[in-house]
Amino acid sequence: MKKVVLQISYDGTSYAGWQRQANACSVQEIVEKGIENLTQQRVNLFSASRTDAGVHALAQYASFEDASSIPAEKFSFALNTKLPDDIRVVRSFKVPEAFNCRYDVLYKSYLYRIFPSIHASALFRNFSYHVPVPLNFSTMQDAANFIVGEHNFQAFEATGGQTKSKVRHMFSSEVFWENDFLCYRVKGDGFLYNMVRIIAGTLVDIGSGKLEPTCISEAFVTGDRRCLGHTAPAHGLVLEQIVYPKL
Amino acid sequence: MKKVVLQISYDGTSYAGWQRQANACSVQEIVEKGIENLTQQRVNLFSASRTDAGVHALAQYASFEDASSIPAEKFSFALNTKLPDDIRVVRSFKVPEAFNCRYDVLYKSYLYRIFPSIHASALFRNFSYHVPVPLNFSTMQDAANFIVGEHNFQAFEATGGQTKSKVRHMFSSEVFWENDFLCYRVKGDGFLYNMVRIIAGTLVDIGSGKLEPTCISEAFVTGDRRCLGHTAPAHGLVLEQIVYPKL
Repeated sequence: MKKVVLQISYDGTSYAGWQRQANACSVQEIVEKGIENLTQQRVNLFSASRTDAGVHALAQYASFEDASSIPAEKFSFALNTKLPDDIRVVRSFKVPEAFNCRYDVLYKSYLYRIFPSIHASALFRNFSYHVPVPLNFSTMQDAANFIVGEHNFQAFEATGGQTKSKVRHMFSSEVFWENDFLCYRVKGDGFLYNMVRIIAGTLVDIGSGKLEPTCISEAFVTGDRRCLGHTAPAHGLVLEQIVYPKL
Repeated sequence: MKKVVLQISYDGTSYAGWQRQANACSVQEIVEKGIENLTQQRVNLFSASRTDAGVHALAQYASFEDASSIPAEKFSFALNTKLPDDIRVVRSFKVPEAFNCRYDVLYKSYLYRIFPSIHASALFRNFSYHVPVPLNFSTMQDAANFIVGEHNFQAFEATGGQTKSKVRHMFSSEVFWENDFLCYRVKGDGFLYNMVRIIAGTLVDIGSGKLEPTCISEAFVTGDRRCLGHTAPAHGLVLEQIVYPKL
């Protein structure tokens, strides 16, 4: 028996999110079935993050207990032959039994892509949030700066969040241009339910002049979701990196 | 009667290319049907470029004669409501009767995306050519430089090309990194059939050590297709810009 970790990249467009569900097709289910198909083992993948329907990943991490004779590093190659091409296992490796995908995270990095343009993007429609009004870049940048540091992010959580402590530490929070896309990248030690999408939606509302950047510091003080803007749609979001100090 | 030009962006994944065909769904057909649906006119779109099946466009240009009362600048908005979301009319405008989408081009710019990685990209699988072997960036850069200038590109044409003169002028030809993608951008006054895909495939063969950069100057001298590398697949290619001096 060995503990194997998979780094998984997926286009979330066709899936009801990461987590296994009774009546919808999830990424977890497809990868678990791939492992069963390959090794005849029924496994339960334990993931770092439960991404929502439509959210993408460059680097989701998930572990399972493996009794097969396949070397851990070979799993990526073997498993990719059993998976659809919108899910790729980018890397696989053995970890100590004590390693925990979810709790051993040093930080996670999320990228949110906004397409501020009169018409939507034909090519990247599934990977960007189309905003048809002009956005003020420097106001958004100011607002993004407020996110950095240790704060109580209670106001940034959608109903349905399950963690007790709402305090999280954000190491960086930046708005930048990448070609025609206005991007937002945030790195932190943990994220509440829908937190990045609420930040992204709030930044859009600040950029379009509906809200002031100070709404963010107000939200920290009051803990009130209503201080903030809308929840930006799932398909603009990518879980792009998870850093583990032990790996 | 007025002459209207559309700037059209499309994800080529689901289409048999730009040009109307008897037994396959083309971008041209879908846009012409959209115009008919909107204005009850049967039109014939005359385009700047005939992109192959799977090739994408950020800026295809196509003109038609319009007898409707819709102002030229409003066509993009009206037409987008009739089109699938993998085709977007980005801009529409009136041009003088003498304007010709195909012959008035100053230069066109194409972008080719290569994904050099052990495993393919789940997110950008339809927009990048997966190359599972390491590529030597600086050798590819040297080779790309040879393309610049006025040359006889006969060796860079797939069978089926229809133009008489094979002399074209390339204004720039560059290899660069964009995140994890090795990109190639070429700007020129015209391109032969499959020319950019043959250049891209040759650059990959040079980067992997199968061919020497000098094969390109040899191909100019001999006009022999066999001096060059493979034709890179269509889905890595984007027609990204067309510049008209008159507009």
